[in-house]
This record gives sequence, structure tokens and C-alpha cells, in this order.
Amino acid sequence: MLKNFEYAKTEDKVKLNREIKELRARLVAQQQQVRAGKLPVLVLIEGWSAAGKGSLIKEIISEMDPRFYQVISPAIIPENEERYPFLYPFANAIPENGQVVFLDSGWMESAVRKNLRLEITRDEYKRRIRMVNEFERQLRDGGYLVLKIFLHIDKKEQGNRLKNLLDDADTEWRVTKDDLWQHEEYAPFLKAYDDFMEKTGEHVQWHVLDGKRKKRATRDALKLLVNKIDKALEKGRYIGDPFEEKFPLVKMPKLADVDLTPTITDEEYKEELKKLQSRLSDLHNILYRKKIPVILCYEGWDAAGKGGNIRRVAYPLDPRGVDVHPIASPEPHELNRQFLWRFWTRLPRTGHICIFDRTWYGRVMVERLEGFCTEKDWKRAYNEINEFERMLTDWGAVVMKFWIHIDQDTQLARFTDRQNTPEKQWKITDEDWRNREKWPQYEEAVDEMLAKTSTKNAPWYIIESNDKKYARIKALRLIIKKLEDACEGNL
Amino acid sequence: MLKNFEYAKTEDKVKLNREIKELRARLVAQQQQVRAGKLPVLVLIEGWSAAGKGSLIKEIISEMDPRFYQVISPAIIPENEERYPFLYPFANAIPENGQVVFLDSGWMESAVRKNLRLEITRDEYKRRIRMVNEFERQLRDGGYLVLKIFLHIDKKEQGNRLKNLLDDADTEWRVTKDDLWQHEEYAPFLKAYDDFMEKTGEHVQWHVLDGKRKKRATRDALKLLVNKIDKALEKGRYIGDPFEEKFPLVKMPKLADVDLTPTITDEEYKEELKKLQSRLSDLHNILYRKKIPVILCYEGWDAAGKGGNIRRVAYPLDPRGVDVHPIASPEPHELNRQFLWRFWTRLPRTGHICIFDRTWYGRVMVERLEGFCTEKDWKRAYNEINEFERMLTDWGAVVMKFWIHIDQDTQLARFTDRQNTPEKQWKITDEDWRNREKWPQYEEAVDEMLAKTSTKNAPWYIIESNDKKYARIKALRLIIKKLEDACEGNL
Repeated sequence: MLKNFEYAKTEDKVKLNREIKELRARLVAQQQQVRAGKLPVLVLIEGWSAAGKGSLIKEIISEMDPRFYQVISPAIIPENEERYPFLYPFANAIPENGQVVFLDSGWMESAVRKNLRLEITRDEYKRRIRMVNEFERQLRDGGYLVLKIFLHIDKKEQGNRLKNLLDDADTEWRVTKDDLWQHEEYAPFLKAYDDFMEKTGEHVQWHVLDGKRKKRATRDALKLLVNKIDKALEKGRYIGDPFEEKFPLVKMPKLADVDLTPTITDEEYKEELKKLQSRLSDLHNILYRKKIPVILCYEGWDAAGKGGNIRRVAYPLDPRGVDVHPIASPEPHELNRQFLWRFWTRLPRTGHICIFDRTWYGRVMVERLEGFCTEKDWKRAYNEINEFERMLTDWGAVVMKFWIHIDQDTQLARFTDRQNTPEKQWKITDEDWRNREKWPQYEEAVDEMLAKTSTKNAPWYIIESNDKKYARIKALRLIIKKLEDACEGNL
Repeated sequence: MLKNFEYAKTEDKVKLNREIKELRARLVAQQQQVRAGKLPVLVLIEGWSAAGKGSLIKEIISEMDPRFYQVISPAIIPENEERYPFLYPFANAIPENGQVVFLDSGWMESAVRKNLRLEITRDEYKRRIRMVNEFERQLRDGGYLVLKIFLHIDKKEQGNRLKNLLDDADTEWRVTKDDLWQHEEYAPFLKAYDDFMEKTGEHVQWHVLDGKRKKRATRDALKLLVNKIDKALEKGRYIGDPFEEKFPLVKMPKLADVDLTPTITDEEYKEELKKLQSRLSDLHNILYRKKIPVILCYEGWDAAGKGGNIRRVAYPLDPRGVDVHPIASPEPHELNRQFLWRFWTRLPRTGHICIFDRTWYGRVMVERLEGFCTEKDWKRAYNEINEFERMLTDWGAVVMKFWIHIDQDTQLARFTDRQNTPEKQWKITDEDWRNREKWPQYEEAVDEMLAKTSTKNAPWYIIESNDKKYARIKALRLIIKKLEDACEGNL
């Protein structure tokens, strides 16, 4: 795209100014429709150092109502980025419904630069390309309007601009070593940018603009944005079709076939619990030192004993290195973003453990059954979740998912006990009883979920929990086994 | 407190274990009352390196329901801290109503260590003491239960523990240079901790526990927490009384006395706008380089022209270094915290500019008039806000506050215009009309606000905006003058 790029011709300045003015006015008017139509818009501006990305954004937003857009430069979080997955800062930055976010450099710059610096392997670069495509598709399928612009200048122009910046004491500091390095390595960068754009145009197209002609670039960027918003508003929010990618799966039994009789004696429980917790505590030290992130996911029937199970796992861990995230129904600002957003923002740093008490699987259970999302949405979610989890395990995380399982009689006994015990009454709500009535539908949904998302890299484990103590010991053993493997690099 | 500390005697282990068990059970039960009573609880655990702060927290939380507490170690954000005010990470971490937050080291460690390292001046240390007292008082007055514990061990015990950690390959990495330095400098640290605790017991008391006797410390910490929660629940949420501290104030005119006739010609406006915006753009570079944070606050009548004014100021700024924060009514998670929390979380990094489109002054205007807070709350807020802003300017920030002013006739004309112009209709709501009816009450509240919060360090500026263009030029001029002074170090 850059190799044979046709640089823009000069155009009549008066005409350009008029067009820009008109487009800006249209954009301002559109902001209200974007808001009313709850359309989330993400504008990614990539390009060469000194190509004028910042100014371009400035020109685009100049008339916009600041209540409904945001400019984000991920450059300000370099330190944290290293402790999180590659896409973490960008996923965190996705707009709410009805908002426009401008990203000043994003996943492209991050992937290309690290590749050229040989800071990531060839394989990791390929993976990042794949992740970018998945990320962009997920956004598009979730109804996001994504616009990707690359601002191009040739080597000579870049040289002049850098020189101008360096010659002025007030702007000198703006030129980083990285910028000078890019200028020196202009040719390989050009090739790398081209390569990246070629491989990431699958779901969202790239638009290359000539950074030398500022007014033209402003006009063209505005035009692209305004036209795309018009189209999106006209067609209504896009909802992607379900699709099925191949993931290597672990075969899971049907819930109905799970034997729930296993128990453990009190003595064995006490003894084992102590031993296992002590071992887990030691492992946490090693994980921390080796910077391995761990993500433990708990799902299960109401009253199955998730909370107690989680507490036994969390107890031996250093509280500074573990977070338990209880997942309730989404808050308004969470509901207004792609469904995985509230999990992206809760990911652990490397070396940390996080435990999710309920998870992103709500999408294919409660949201599916209660109609909180469309059928297309939850059907697409199996793959979206598999991609999300592959991204996590590729990053080096241990991901384990537990289905805490009981039968209906056990649930009834526990519900009744809660009902009859004053200090437990808060634990039981009308909703629990309503959910109970839908046991068959839930069972079907869970079976489908287990079948479709128990990937080799992030498998499900069914934990028989009619005997809660048995369940705790089983979970601890599984976790320890997996973490031992991870510490020895055997994953 | 530490100098003559009486170390704990050994106690009967069986009895201790029983007490701990009972207290844990009470704490678990209390969690539900805390939740129902919407009581926010902040537990600060400070103490020597290797005193066992992490383990103490672990023992306290071991039976608690993880949905209703959180453990935070600010140690994980050292890089960011340097770009934000001293209390920023801790203010960010305050709990929501009904939640318990455990802070593993907080403002004490941060102030004392920097003081001993001579990384802050004597004066800055004194300021930090004052800020801590203000912060704690504000939390207490806002209904927070704050519990402060210091975990104490003597030098010998600390030496042994550090040695044990160093001797084990799995835990060796846990001992930092800072820890060893503290051990060497035990005596000055002891003096410094004592000094800090002596000066910060004003609003929230310190409790020193013997870290050598782990079980005892656990029992004592649990007891403190459980008793304090009981008391807080029994008395109901505390609401602090209004108080008046002396702040050096700038005398402000009454709104009724402001001359709203100033205008500007279109030619002068165009010329000046261009000149001033270009100057502002240059200043942004210098501010960025000098790492001066800037906070511009906009308040004013509906339809006074805040949005347009803000846009003219924001336009020349590098969008990567400026954030415009539109402040709407608080979301649930914001409403559930001290009223300044949602502004703490939006503070700019050093060198960045942020513009608030409506601000924390909502407390003494809309919240006061609509009864969204108690009378005590808004009356206390004048001082709380002055303290907050002094904290910002002490940090080095430029804080400017603009009241965009129009008269009632102008407002009516603009409302009517909005009503009659299809593309402006979204800007006018029933609420605007309702607010308009309360003009006299608002005027009284604004006059009081201007009189009580126009401090020398963070003054109010009344911007006459019957002529919007005049208002824009005036705001730009004021901002430029102030930023020039700041860049020359003349604030």
C-alpha cells in the first residue's frame, strides 16, 4: 500500500477549506445521531513519526462536542503494557456506545516496532497479526464502527520535519531516539508497515492518507469518517453472524452423566487441605518470580459452593498478588461496551493470580437464556471466547475453568437451609428460585458451553460438589498440578 | 508510640484460636450488614518491612466473602505515582459504600520513606502530614470507617525474618534493597514512624500491634475491626459537621453586579483568536516539557456557552496532552463513593492539561439545591474543596475556575433558539427549563460558592458571556497569562 503510494496532488485551497468546514458541520450533527443510535466509533490513526497524527486528530475534532468523544494515546502507558497482553491497552480504550474514541497510534505501531526491534519472535509477530484480526472482527461483529487510517510521508519529508522540531528549543524534546531510529531505518519500516496492513485488512479496511498535504488529509479523513458514520446509522447497528473456527477441544461429558457421589472424610479433608494450601502458597512465590499470570474461572449452579471453594484457594495466596473478581450484572458503563471489555479491564498483571467468581461465560448462559443479547451474539460468543482465552494462554497465562456441579436435590436442600437460617438468608433471592425452575434450559446451555469451549489450552474441569469438601480438595489438586507444570515450563 | 512499645505477652494458643474463629464468624456476618448499611470501610495496614502485613491481611480476610472486600497494594503502581499527586493512588482506592478495602501500605509509608530518603523537602513532608489529616478527616466526615494499624517488630526480629527470606531460593527475591536499607536504618525509621503517627492521629487513631506474635496480632486486628464496624452500624453513618478553615481568599463581586455588556467585533475576534490560540499551542509544549499539570474548570449557566469556550481553548492543544472531562450526573459506582472520588480519578498527569466541563462544584450547586446531599454535606464541601484544590496547587498544578456568566434574558433567547432549531433541540431539555425557574436560588448558591472558594491559589474568574466571542477571548487571555507565569515559575 505504501510502496506504490500515489502522493496527493495540490488542490484548490479555498475549495478544500470549504469542504472541511462542511464536513465538520456534518460531523457535529452526526455526533447527536451517534449518541441517539448508541453507535460506538473507534478511529485508529497510525502512521510515521512526525507524519502529523496529533494534528490530524486535532483538525478532525476541532468542532466536535467534547462530551461525546475522547482522544487516547496509549504511548502514555508503556510500563504497564509490558505486564499485560499486547492488546490490553487498546481493548481497555474501546468506546462506550454512542461515543467516538480516537486512538493516536495503537496495535499496529506496537506490533511493527517490536517486530523490527526483534523484541518479539517471528511467531509472536504472526500471532499478533492473528490477534489483531480477531480483535477487529469481534469489534465489528459487536456493532463497532472501526476506521483505520495510516498517515504516510516519504523519507525526505520526515527528515525535514524532524529537523525542524530539533532546531526549536521548545519542540526538541518531542523527537525521541525511536523517531530518529525509524528515520534511519525508513526502508525496512516501509516494508513492515506494508506487510502489516496487507495482513490486517481482512475485516476492517486500511486507508492511507498523504501526510504531506495536511488540508487534504484532514478533508479525506473527515470524509471517510462522516461517510462511514452515515452508512452505519442508516443500516443500523451491525451484528455479526455466528461462525465456527476450529479449536483443539477436550471432550467433555454431559452434566447428566457426571457421577456426583464422591465424598471425602473430615479427617482426610483437614489433612489434605493443610498440605495442599501450603503447597499452593509455595507455588505462588515461584509464579510471581517467573512472572506467570494465572486466571481461575468459577462457574456453577447457584448454591453449588463456588464462594467457599474460592476462599480455600485464595487463603494461602499472598493477598498482594491475588484478586478475586465477583462478577455481577454489568453496570451501565460496562453494558455499553463489547461484552468482554469488563474482563479485559480486570486481567491480572504477569505473576499475579486472579479468580473470577462468575465470568464471561454469562454470555452463553444467563444472557442467552434471559434474552439479554441476541441469538447471533451468544452463538458468536463461543468462538469469541475461545479466541479471547487463546490470546491469554498465548500470552503465557494459565487459564483454568471450573464448573462447580451439584444435582437438583442438593440445590433444593441448600436453598431451603439458606431460607431457614437467618444469617444465610441474604444469600437466597427470588431470582435463585426462578433460575432453579429453568434448570433444564440451563443444563442444555451448560452442556453446549462445555462442549464448545473446553479447549486444550483453557480446559473446563467439572468439580463434583454435592460434597463441598471433596470439591475443594479436587479443585486445589487440579490447580496445583497445573501450576506445577507451568512453573516447570511444561504447558 | 513505638519508642516505649510494650511487646505482647504470649497467650494461651487454644484460647487465641477460639477467639479468632469467633471474630472471623462475626466479621462474615457483619459483611452483610455493612453491605445493607452501605458502610464503606477502609483498613490501612502499615508497618515495618517483613512485619507480616500481607499475612495479617490474609488472616483477617480468610473467611470473608470476596464479593465485598478488596485488597490493594499501591506498591504495584510506583511509576504512575510520580506523575500524580502524593495521595492519588490511595484516593483512587477508597471503597464503595458497603465494601471493605484493605490497603497494604499506604500514605504513611509513602511519606515517611521519601522523607528519610530526602526525596522530598522538609516543607513537603509537613504538607503531606497536613494533606493526610485532611484526607482522613474528609473520609471520616463523609461516613467512611477508617481503621489504621501499624504492625511493629523490633530490629532483631526484622533481621531474622529478612535472613530467613534471603536463605530460601524461592523467597529471596522478596527482599528488596529498600528492605535492607530500612533494616540498617532501623533507628531513624523508628523515630520517623513515631513522628508520623504522632502527627496524624488527629481524626483517625493509630493502633500499633505486635507483629512478632502473629496470632495475637490477628486476634487484635480482627477485634478492632469487628468492634468498630459494630459501633459504626449501631450509630448509623457518620456525617461530619461543617467547619471553616482560613484560606486566603480573593474578593469576588456578586453576580448581580457584574457588567455583562462587553462585546468584541468580529474582526478583532478572528484576529485575536488566531493569535491567542497560536500562543497557547506554544505554551503547551513548554508545560509538557516542564511537567506542569493544568486543570481548567468550567461552570456556568445553562446555555452560557461553556462548550464553545472549551472548544476554542482545546483546539490549539496537542490532543495527546489534553483531556476534556464532561461531568454528568454520577454513575452508580461514583455515587457510592466520597464525592471527590470521580475527580481524583480524572486528574491529569504532570505536563498534561485537563478541562472539566462542570466540576466538583456541583456539590454546592445542583446537589445542594436538589437535595442530593445533606445540608451538612454541602456546607462542609466549601472547605473540602478548598483543601482538595490546595492539594492540587501544592503539587504544582495550575488550577483556574471559570464561571461563564449570562443574564436571564440571554438565556431565554438561547433556549428559545435551541427549541426552534432542529439540530440544536437535543441541547435543550425539560430540566433546563426547570433549572431556569430556580435562577434566584442558583444565583444565591453561586454567589456563596464564589465568595467561599475563590482562593488565591485557585481563583474563580467570571467570564461575561452575553457575547460568546468576547467570553472566549477573555478566557484565552486569562489562561495564557496564568500559564506564562507558571512556565516562568512565578506562581
